Amino acid sequence: MRSKLLTAGLVLAIGTGYACSAIAQVKPETLVDQRVSAMRLQGKYFGPLVGMAQGRVPYDANIAARNAGYLEVLSKMPWDGFEPSTKDLKTRALPEVYAEPAKFKAAQDSFNAEVGKLVAATKSGNEANVKTAILDVNKACGSCHDSFRAKAQ
Amino acid sequence: MRSKLLTAGLVLAIGTGYACSAIAQVKPETLVDQRVSAMRLQGKYFGPLVGMAQGRVPYDANIAARNAGYLEVLSKMPWDGFEPSTKDLKTRALPEVYAEPAKFKAAQDSFNAEVGKLVAATKSGNEANVKTAILDVNKACGSCHDSFRAKAQ
Repeated sequence: MRSKLLTAGLVLAIGTGYACSAIAQVKPETLVDQRVSAMRLQGKYFGPLVGMAQGRVPYDANIAARNAGYLEVLSKMPWDGFEPSTKDLKTRALPEVYAEPAKFKAAQDSFNAEVGKLVAATKSGNEANVKTAILDVNKACGSCHDSFRAKAQ
Repeated sequence: MRSKLLTAGLVLAIGTGYACSAIAQVKPETLVDQRVSAMRLQGKYFGPLVGMAQGRVPYDANIAARNAGYLEVLSKMPWDGFEPSTKDLKTRALPEVYAEPAKFKAAQDSFNAEVGKLVAATKSGNEANVKTAILDVNKACGSCHDSFRAKAQ
């Protein structure tokens, strides 16, 4: 099973140069599972930060820095899973993901930029700046979800 | 839904000091989803490296370094999801995960150490060393799976 899993994901992340043809070889269901996984882990590590920014969780600079660093990596992972091959699977991705790729890419870039600012803020050690940056990331999440993800039923 | 997701993951990653009580507040199903997500993303990014080490995929030093860096972060993420609260859920985790926690922790540490060596190898730029390190990580994956994960049906 391990080798099957590895084979399934094998060519996905080969690199920019081969990305299109490589992704075409990964099952659409696998692509969806992978992108959902990346989003879920973002929730795991971003949730506590939102709690800190909103005063529901005690502020911890070390956790903020660690989770921001994790997010910086995780925030690069979902996007290549939104392949046209996945379009007809039942997911919460709206048709706009595929109909407006430039707008979707801009939303990704905006999110990734806010995460970058958050990482920088955690390195500065200024709690107020970190909290502001957390809320800005949260807005970027929400803005993209509003346009590209179906509301929960 | 977003805020629900965030709340669900909220206290999970608060940090070592609060880890036990915090994890107890996260639903076992959520913990399983999160750990499966981390494992799945490891597969996504490690698969191509195994392909390179086995000569099935052209070697690309940049991809090797990027994926090794991703793995270094991902390899920290599954373990706090193996809470005793998840023990009775239907997963591929064997009872040994909970019956032999010291052995399970040693297997995690061994895997994480091999990933660290892989990251170091990708920084050295020596292709043969990178490939050896990839195969050593693969062995650590397999060794842990052999002891702690049920075989695929």
